[in-house]
Amino acid sequence: MKRTDVGTSCCPVARSLSHVGEWWSILILRDAMIGLTRFDEFEKSLGIAPNMLTRRLASLVEAGLLERVQYQDRPPRYEYFLTEAGKAFRPVLLAFVEWGSRYFAPEGRSVQLVERATGRPVRVGMVDLDTGKPVDARDYVIEPGPAADDHLRYCFTYGKTKRRGGDTGLKFAPPSISVVDDDGDGRARRGKART
Amino acid sequence: MKRTDVGTSCCPVARSLSHVGEWWSILILRDAMIGLTRFDEFEKSLGIAPNMLTRRLASLVEAGLLERVQYQDRPPRYEYFLTEAGKAFRPVLLAFVEWGSRYFAPEGRSVQLVERATGRPVRVGMVDLDTGKPVDARDYVIEPGPAADDHLRYCFTYGKTKRRGGDTGLKFAPPSISVVDDDGDGRARRGKART
Repeated sequence: MKRTDVGTSCCPVARSLSHVGEWWSILILRDAMIGLTRFDEFEKSLGIAPNMLTRRLASLVEAGLLERVQYQDRPPRYEYFLTEAGKAFRPVLLAFVEWGSRYFAPEGRSVQLVERATGRPVRVGMVDLDTGKPVDARDYVIEPGPAADDHLRYCFTYGKTKRRGGDTGLKFAPPSISVVDDDGDGRARRGKART
Repeated sequence: MKRTDVGTSCCPVARSLSHVGEWWSILILRDAMIGLTRFDEFEKSLGIAPNMLTRRLASLVEAGLLERVQYQDRPPRYEYFLTEAGKAFRPVLLAFVEWGSRYFAPEGRSVQLVERATGRPVRVGMVDLDTGKPVDARDYVIEPGPAADDHLRYCFTYGKTKRRGGDTGLKFAPPSISVVDDDGDGRARRGKART
């Protein structure tokens, strides 16, 4: 089966998803963040099938997000620890926590961020670190950066024109993106995270 | 096939992923955020197969993240717009942008947040909105909230004990989580986002 390899796109969201774009991967990172390290811990916490867990752990190690460390000789047993890149996934998880708690938790908060020293529940938000202002869509806009390719620039320009003018009869004809064989598990093969 | 329905978990990350835990869904939300609205726009932007796109759009509408609006009678044609809950996904995308740009973009930034009024590229971070401090793992910890169930509380307590004491010979035996039939597309059926 041919499909577009989103991992080859220059978009950082697509790149991220080529490494963790499978809900099990994100939930494994969540559990590792809590402090779980072993196969049976992930298995019981997630209720995931062992063969699926084996594949997801291997892909997270390959992506440079988990490090595998042997803790027992006979039989060989391994633990999985977050790498620096894996730990840096925390803001993405926190953003999911905020969004999920707001829209999909009618019964209230089941997870919250608290200040370690005081236990105070914390209101979390994304801000402009230089001004402290929340980066809402009115004041801050996502734009192509220096490394954007033609496809991405085209999509942004088209979207901007459309947002301004409504249905302008524009024809959407972006430069093509690359199409590759993937390995069938819904995930592109990429190198490790830069650490 | 039986599998654990992560959408029934009380964890807000799992709840979120039951709605968008498929990379195509996240990329469709990304494109909608840019300003794309129509089937052929998403199709060309993503290089996604039409049947897959039909399914993902329907599930995003069902989840209350996109609204479907007819713009043509014969033949009937529809556009898709972000709902309030869909627009509120923006911080998750921004968190992916930051993480992906840092670890998986050796060639530099292809997407950046800029201040609308000035065009200044913005350094983005998650902070404690009451103090303005970045919510790094040293000072801020994720804890169970009031609506946490026994499974989630157990996992947090176990992880905390383990992080403190290393290999203490603890046996991981969480209360069971519910197992349901899912519909085979890797996504639990849930109600709409609360808006």
